[in-house]
Order: sequence, then structure tokens, then C-alpha cells
Amino acid sequence: MKRVGVLGGGQLGRMLALAGYPLGLRFRFLEPAAGSPVSGLGEVVTAAYDDLDAAVRFADGLDVVTYEFENVPVRSAQALAERIPVRPPPGALQVAQDRVLEKQAFEGLGIPTAPYMPVGDRDDLESAVARIGLPAVLKTRRLGYDGKGQVVLRAPAELEGAWARLGGKPLILERFVDFTRELSLVGARGTKGETAFYPLVENEHTDGILRLTVAPAPLVSDALQARAEEQMRALMESLDYVGVMALEFFQQGDELLANELAPRVHNSGHWTLNGAACSQFENHLRAICGFPLGATEALGHSAMVNLIGRLPALGRVLGLEGVHLHLYDKSPRKGRKVGHVNLTGRDPADVRARIERLEALLEEGGRGEG
Amino acid sequence: MKRVGVLGGGQLGRMLALAGYPLGLRFRFLEPAAGSPVSGLGEVVTAAYDDLDAAVRFADGLDVVTYEFENVPVRSAQALAERIPVRPPPGALQVAQDRVLEKQAFEGLGIPTAPYMPVGDRDDLESAVARIGLPAVLKTRRLGYDGKGQVVLRAPAELEGAWARLGGKPLILERFVDFTRELSLVGARGTKGETAFYPLVENEHTDGILRLTVAPAPLVSDALQARAEEQMRALMESLDYVGVMALEFFQQGDELLANELAPRVHNSGHWTLNGAACSQFENHLRAICGFPLGATEALGHSAMVNLIGRLPALGRVLGLEGVHLHLYDKSPRKGRKVGHVNLTGRDPADVRARIERLEALLEEGGRGEG
Repeated sequence: MKRVGVLGGGQLGRMLALAGYPLGLRFRFLEPAAGSPVSGLGEVVTAAYDDLDAAVRFADGLDVVTYEFENVPVRSAQALAERIPVRPPPGALQVAQDRVLEKQAFEGLGIPTAPYMPVGDRDDLESAVARIGLPAVLKTRRLGYDGKGQVVLRAPAELEGAWARLGGKPLILERFVDFTRELSLVGARGTKGETAFYPLVENEHTDGILRLTVAPAPLVSDALQARAEEQMRALMESLDYVGVMALEFFQQGDELLANELAPRVHNSGHWTLNGAACSQFENHLRAICGFPLGATEALGHSAMVNLIGRLPALGRVLGLEGVHLHLYDKSPRKGRKVGHVNLTGRDPADVRARIERLEALLEEGGRGEG
Repeated sequence: MKRVGVLGGGQLGRMLALAGYPLGLRFRFLEPAAGSPVSGLGEVVTAAYDDLDAAVRFADGLDVVTYEFENVPVRSAQALAERIPVRPPPGALQVAQDRVLEKQAFEGLGIPTAPYMPVGDRDDLESAVARIGLPAVLKTRRLGYDGKGQVVLRAPAELEGAWARLGGKPLILERFVDFTRELSLVGARGTKGETAFYPLVENEHTDGILRLTVAPAPLVSDALQARAEEQMRALMESLDYVGVMALEFFQQGDELLANELAPRVHNSGHWTLNGAACSQFENHLRAICGFPLGATEALGHSAMVNLIGRLPALGRVLGLEGVHLHLYDKSPRKGRKVGHVNLTGRDPADVRARIERLEALLEEGGRGEG
């Protein structure tokens, strides 16, 4: 019996626990908020992430610690790593938390990424715009998620407003990529260095929040898949990585530009709960516990639709064909992910028809029965 | 958010909870033993099943009550049913708990079953043997499971010993069925009377304990499947049933003889966790919560192998292809089910090869790493 500690008690922690019980694992969570999505699914230590005393209590008796939230303070992860294996390693957390370190990691391994410049003050912003050109995207280096903490700059006149909004924090200016589509890769690396990768998937966002993933992504050549895998493998090796990682790419024609890495299970991998033999959650746990990795092929065609801001009429959703419901036990609030629906189908057209039926139902309005 | 109460906290309760969290359900268990397989997966009220005060505390605030253990006292289920929906209804529990009532239910609906006679005393046994003939099986009417509480009688000289072992309890004598194989059907009935059935599966027992299920069962005609479904549908309607039911059959040539019904999710339905779009656990919860039933077709070919008496080397099991591990967090003990492995494959031969590789590994011995 392995005891797994998870930093964070959101939906990712919830789905890790649900995947881990069948493997005989037990869970303890460190989570600042009461009444989180992991309530009822294990022990919960309610404390701030930077409360080192609480972290020590949390770690007592655990076999391995992982995280489901990438903004856990690196210092807390490092303090835990002195006592107990922390996987993925705190160094991966550090790189993922800072967009400049992340871009430097890509560059250092020859992984193509959009041109960028760190921006510390107003003068830096001018020179970065002069060098990168417009349109560009000004982002906070840290703590951005779901499109928060970023502004698109299309004309010099917009610099002032953007600076007023974001200035004062460490920033990064990136060239705006007019991409064909966003793809992402989810993969795992085990304790013996072995790797396994799911097929590339295609993601669609609305208001900066992932709304839809189609898996596998249509029209992906073997060469493109292999290139994405090579890049992730290189990143994993350089970070001595253990666990699941996600890497978002912009595709422009035949080119891939790495955009962002997540050192954890990822929303664009949720389809694997019903569309692959071994889900990203099970593979993350297999990896951090030193077990062999599970099969990552897509079992057929599937999609993931996020439930954002409100719960649909559950009875009606469950009445649709090919539907797999995954709720997070979160109270609905604007822009908040409260669950997702995985859709499986015979072929891409069948999946597309199911996405449309589901989206029509979601648009009809709030929660009815159930 | 629906709150589901479960009478019993064994592996079936554990798998119900794991299937129910994604539907947004929460769980409370009534379980006499401490440290059961549902520990950590919801609230647990630790009390005897016949403690009516505890049952009232248990029921407080729940939306629906179900059971995962069929020997819950009918009186407790009835007392709960006065306060809250109990699904399946206590009447189904009553029939399933008594082999004579069960056979009468089969007979009343024209469902073929082996000839039988109730046996109250030693004289009844003589006259039952005279009428039914030998070989026959003498069983306790109540509380038998996994082959416990039964003796096969092959010669008149064996009556004395069988009576010494089982006499004093209400018994039943059944004609010994020299069956070709054992099949079972798992199906669900919803609150609106709608039904859904998984394909018939083939079961193999060792020492009276289910060891292997192959799904779907090979060589099942549409007519045989339809007949089994009709019989279960008739039983469900007569009992005003809501939830998942399992029905075990002996197959003799082209004939089906109903042997036993289980008013709950069943070991021979565990393959559905990885071999069907919607598992028996999810379908049971959909049914008792009034949601539409989920898809019951087999997604391909699969099998379920019980882990009995000891845990295998987890790292080695997880290294096999097509393996899905389901552990119950029970300490190993002779004859005790501590988990199961589902195996999925391309075709029946592939599944058979995987069963053989797994069984070879299980025979090699106890737990190694992990």
C-alpha cells in the first residue's frame, strides 16, 4: 500500500484519487480551502501551501508527494523533497512557474517557440516591442492561467493601457502567433526513464478557457507526432522528470511552436479517462509510484467538453449517447470549470455530431432535474 | 447533488463510490466492521445492520439508500424504506435471501430452474431425495455464498454426514445440474421501468469462488441472450425492481436453468469497468438516482480474473498488456477476494493469451515489489 500526498485539492486531485484507489493507493491532500473537490476522497490537511509546519505534518507517513496545482511555492516543494520523494521534481515546478525560465528551457533544447523578451520596466516594454514587433502578447511571468494576466498588443497606442494593467509585476512580451490551431501533447515518464505519449489532441478555447478537446487531433502526420514527442522527451530528460507532463503547441502550417508546459495532469488530457486504456491520472500515479506505465493509444475517437460556469440538466446530459460525465463537486460560478463531459464515438463525424448535440443542450440553460 | 446511502462497505460499495463521484454523488455507508474497503471514500456509520437507531442516523439527509450486501436484514431495509426510497426494494432482498422464495419466484414466472424441495427436518430430506433423485445438492436456504453452506449428495450413504453438517437450519434440496457451463446476466432497471442488459458472460469457479469471467461469453446465440433478458425483465417487473440485478444460469445444451439472483452489482459484472461504455456500478447509480441508463454493449473482448487470498507483485501485473487493476484495500486471507484484474484484448484469442500470462504470474507467488 502506497500513501500518496497531493499538493492541491482541486478537480485534478479528485481525479487522481479516483484513479488511484483501484491501484490500492491512499491519498492525503494539502489544500488551503475548505470544502474542496477532494472532500470525502481522503485525508485533507487544510493549510496554506507556504505553511512549512503544516507541510511537515502533511508529509508524515507518506511514500511520495506530487502536486496537482502548479503554483505551489517551490520552497514548499523543496522542503518536502528533503524528506520524501517529490515527483515531478521541484525544478520542473520552478521552470513551469515562470514564463521566461520556461522559454529558456525550450530554447536551450532547440524547441521552437515564439520570439520573446523579459520586461521589467516601461523602457523594457518599448525596446521589446521594437525588437519583437506587433502584434504581441504581454503576459505576467508568473501566476497566469486560463488567459488571465495577459493582454494582446496590436498598435503602439495600446502599450500605455497594457502597462497600466500589468506593469509593476515581472512580465514577458511574446510575438503574437497567428496559429492555425492549438495542439497539446500529454506524456508520462517513469522512474527508470521510460516514456509514453498520448496522441496529439486539438484544443479550442473560449475567453481564454479550454472549452473543447478533440482526440486524437485530426490530420496529424506521424512526423508531427514524433517531433512533439521528441521535444517532450528532451524536456523531461533535462528536468529529470517523473510523472505526467502536458505541452501546449501552436501549429502554423507544418510548424509547431511550444507555448507552455504543465508539470502535471492537464485539462487537455481529460479525454483519456474514457478514450484511452490507461488515463493520464492512472499513468501519473503509475509513474510517481515506480510502476510500469500504461497504454496510451487512443481507443477510438473522442472529445472532451468542459462544463463552465454552470451545471447542465444532468438527466438530459446522461440521456445522450456516448456521454461520460465527470463532475467536480464545485459550486457554479462564472468562468469556473465545474466538470467535463467526455464523448466517445465510432468515427470523427460521429464524435462531432455528439459534440453538437451536447453543446445545444448546454446552451439551453441551467440545471433542470437532478 | 444526490446523497446516496449504501448498506455495506465492502468492495462493491467501494466501486459504487468510485463510479459515483464523477456523477456528482456523495456517499455514506453503514458497515459493521471498522477499516473496510470504503474507508476514505465517504462517511462511514459503524454499526450492526440490525441496529435500527443507527439506521435512522445513517438515513438522515440521504436522498436514496441502496445495498451492496444481500444479507442485510430485510427489517432494517423496510424500516429505512418508511423514511426514504430504498432501491432495489426490500422485497427483492427478501426473495434473494431465501433460496426457496427465489425458486418460487422463478417458477411463478415460468423461468426454468432445477427441481427442488424445501427441507425442514430429517424426514423431509428422505422424501426430497426420493422425489428429486441423486445426485442432488443440499443447501442452507439462507446466508450461503461462495459455495459455503452446501453439500453435494451422490449416494444415499452421504445423507447422514450432510445432515450432521447442515441439519437444524432451514434447507433446500436441488437436483444436481450437470451443466455445460455457467453463464450470468447483469442488467439494470430504471425508475421509469426502462431496462438495459449487458451481454451474457461465462464464469468459472474454483472451490466455489468465482475465479474467471469471460465477456461476452463465446457462442451465445441472439435467441439465448433474448431469453435470458426476458427472464430477468419478468423478474424485475414482478419485484418492481430499480437498480442492477445479476442472474446466474446453468447452461445445458440449449437450455438455461436459472440458479440464483443477486439484487445488486455482482462479481460477474466487474468486467464492465473496462469492457463496457457504462459500468454496472454507474448503471446501478443511474438507476437508483432516476437518471437514464447508460450503454451496456461490450466494447470488445474482455475478461475478469479475481485475486483470491493474496496480492500479486503489482509492478509485474501492471507491466502486462491490457491489464486494469482493481484492488479492494483488504488484507489478504485464504479464500478472500482482495481485488480483480480486468483484461481487454483485440479478440477472444488475444484475451485468452492475456488470461494465461496473468494466471502464470499469479501462480508464481506472493507479492514482490509494490
